[in-house]
Amino acid sequence: MGYNYTGWYANKMRTKAKNPAAKEKLLNAAQALILKKGFSATSVDEVCKAAKLTKGSFFHYFKSKDELGKILLKRFCDSSHQLMDGEGCEGTDPLKRLYCYIDCFIKVFSDDKLSRGCLLACFSQESADTYPEIRCMCEEGFEEWTRRIEKDMKSAKEKYAPKASFDPGSLAEYFVALLEGVQILARVKHDKTAIKESLIHFKHYLDVLYRVRR
Amino acid sequence: MGYNYTGWYANKMRTKAKNPAAKEKLLNAAQALILKKGFSATSVDEVCKAAKLTKGSFFHYFKSKDELGKILLKRFCDSSHQLMDGEGCEGTDPLKRLYCYIDCFIKVFSDDKLSRGCLLACFSQESADTYPEIRCMCEEGFEEWTRRIEKDMKSAKEKYAPKASFDPGSLAEYFVALLEGVQILARVKHDKTAIKESLIHFKHYLDVLYRVRR
Repeated sequence: MGYNYTGWYANKMRTKAKNPAAKEKLLNAAQALILKKGFSATSVDEVCKAAKLTKGSFFHYFKSKDELGKILLKRFCDSSHQLMDGEGCEGTDPLKRLYCYIDCFIKVFSDDKLSRGCLLACFSQESADTYPEIRCMCEEGFEEWTRRIEKDMKSAKEKYAPKASFDPGSLAEYFVALLEGVQILARVKHDKTAIKESLIHFKHYLDVLYRVRR
Repeated sequence: MGYNYTGWYANKMRTKAKNPAAKEKLLNAAQALILKKGFSATSVDEVCKAAKLTKGSFFHYFKSKDELGKILLKRFCDSSHQLMDGEGCEGTDPLKRLYCYIDCFIKVFSDDKLSRGCLLACFSQESADTYPEIRCMCEEGFEEWTRRIEKDMKSAKEKYAPKASFDPGSLAEYFVALLEGVQILARVKHDKTAIKESLIHFKHYLDVLYRVRR
């Protein structure tokens, strides 16, 4: 119960009190706006309006819009990593855990109520060249995520395909790239079919690499 | 020689005259800025400054920043489709053509001088929910691109793996999603290694689906 999902679980947040604190209202409003129209196009005024709070409140909690962006990004990354730890994928078999993650991503990404898009992709696209600190945070977010997946890919290789020549690190990056790409297509097409089908292709590829027979 | 690459070949443009027309200067300046910081954050003033032209010139060619965005997006899509037709991948074997495309993407994406990022991804991320017309254009751009790849994937299946159960349409979408995703990671990490390695994984997956032995 310690989780406070704010990433892909944007709409499923558990908050400590019935009325979330003003800071949290501001963060949630900002996240929704940024995922909808981008960081640059989102103004402090709009965030305050959406959160039904004053500019005074905003600047009580955040020095600037940039600071809000960084806090949001950190919150999103922490929440996404927690998601991977808490989705019933806790078994000891690393390969089963990988398939479980994929099913979990299919479920979360395909559900309109849960998935509002990836804040990491959003900031990466828009701010990577203009805000060095945000780029670093995005890089760390992707790295941490990739490392967690790589760990299972590596253990699964040792267990199921020790002689295979593929590199678990590049496989993990490939998977993360795919997860980002499918979300872009789903958003543009207003159709999430490609997400599921692409992730089923990826499962098939894992079957081949890890010699899984179905 | 009829090509006028403006997409991934942003820096390799061939122009009809030694001094490109003012309109082209504005388009090129805008594209570079948008790929760097996003559409919303790019102002008409900045575009004019970068192109060394006046606001009068800008509004002589474009009614508004939105109109400029649409023209840029169309130019980018046209140029990207031409790229696929003109990269020595003209052979009659559809599978060879697919591998050739992949090698071509590896080359273009990995070259700092050629690749400045994908304008389609940029507009999709930022404007999909706020500008319905731009979303439609992005959708059409992705659809056309997917269709071209799907055509070869389908012919290759008929020739090499007629009994296989995979769907060339979903495979094409999977490939396009991957191409978008790898660019996001490369941009954030300031490192293009993952692009090549991910596309080599994809080639390996094609080997499996099309029963290619190496």
